[in-house]
Amino acid sequence: MTSERLQKQIQFILEVDKLKQIFRQNHVGDGTRMENDAEHSWHMALMTMLLLEYAAEEVDALRVMKMVLVHDIVEIDAGDTYCYDEDARLDQRERELKAAERIFALLPEDQAKEIWSLWEEFEARETADGRFAAAIDRFQPLMLNYHTRGVSWKKNGIKASQVIERTSQIGKGAPELWELGRAFIEEAIELGILVGDVAE
Amino acid sequence: MTSERLQKQIQFILEVDKLKQIFRQNHVGDGTRMENDAEHSWHMALMTMLLLEYAAEEVDALRVMKMVLVHDIVEIDAGDTYCYDEDARLDQRERELKAAERIFALLPEDQAKEIWSLWEEFEARETADGRFAAAIDRFQPLMLNYHTRGVSWKKNGIKASQVIERTSQIGKGAPELWELGRAFIEEAIELGILVGDVAE
Repeated sequence: MTSERLQKQIQFILEVDKLKQIFRQNHVGDGTRMENDAEHSWHMALMTMLLLEYAAEEVDALRVMKMVLVHDIVEIDAGDTYCYDEDARLDQRERELKAAERIFALLPEDQAKEIWSLWEEFEARETADGRFAAAIDRFQPLMLNYHTRGVSWKKNGIKASQVIERTSQIGKGAPELWELGRAFIEEAIELGILVGDVAE
Repeated sequence: MTSERLQKQIQFILEVDKLKQIFRQNHVGDGTRMENDAEHSWHMALMTMLLLEYAAEEVDALRVMKMVLVHDIVEIDAGDTYCYDEDARLDQRERELKAAERIFALLPEDQAKEIWSLWEEFEARETADGRFAAAIDRFQPLMLNYHTRGVSWKKNGIKASQVIERTSQIGKGAPELWELGRAFIEEAIELGILVGDVAE
């Protein structure tokens, strides 16, 4: 007999499988197709493991890892909100809260609470763990956009000022990664794959 | 100036992006397409987080998490070896060792060593962490195969005895998950989605 607790856990684990079908705006490394949230989350968890030494403050590796693994689950219902789509961002928080309420509640109460609080901490970026996780969340697509020669920047007509506004937060969680991120942006402008509308 | 260390780390992180294009035999939860290694690794890391309480022995959550994040990286060069393909399994170890040598060496030496030793520990299944990680690695596709009504079992004509031989190891790392796994197999035989060639 499977316990009710394990049944709930399995139901949640099967529900979040849908993250494999939620596609983001950035492409995977070879530029052939868009990346999905499950792939993005795996890549972020691996980057957390390998780039932890660049965290601005002391962080808890296990907590950051958990945070990045769950940070996009709400997009199963709320969809991926493109970070440069100002209209879609207006009701993003509301859509994501509704999603969290439905999806996290599939879990046993203690685990639902844990995931909810990890997600809120990620969103708030008010703790060392939250700031580092957010830095990795912004650095990963910046790195892929640069590496794929700006395929999604070009497709969406994105300008350097927009990218800088979005990614400068990397500096709060991981200053050295932001230094590298700025170098990516500068080179992207030089290469003409990003519209250079700011003085560099 | 980006340090040589960070350059190496980024090179590795971009190289392993290729895991998003290595496809496995099992399908994602909605059955529409095969799952790739990055998605599989993310799902496993999340399951590690949620199902840790079922580990047979005390395990280190962070180590298991790291282990599952890196366990399939060698498949970038070695390819996914289908667990029921006896011919392909003959030189699997050799192919994977060669892959590990090339790919892990992209990292700074300390991190290359860490990942190599996590991968070897996963392969050996001789420690509590290794056995639990291996249990999750076998339970995840069993759960998805059952959930997708055996789409890849049917396609490959897989029999219950083969699945049991492959998945009974779940019991060593997580007995309660193996109990549930057995229930999946028994129901799959009853539903006719798995050839029942063993007395249940």
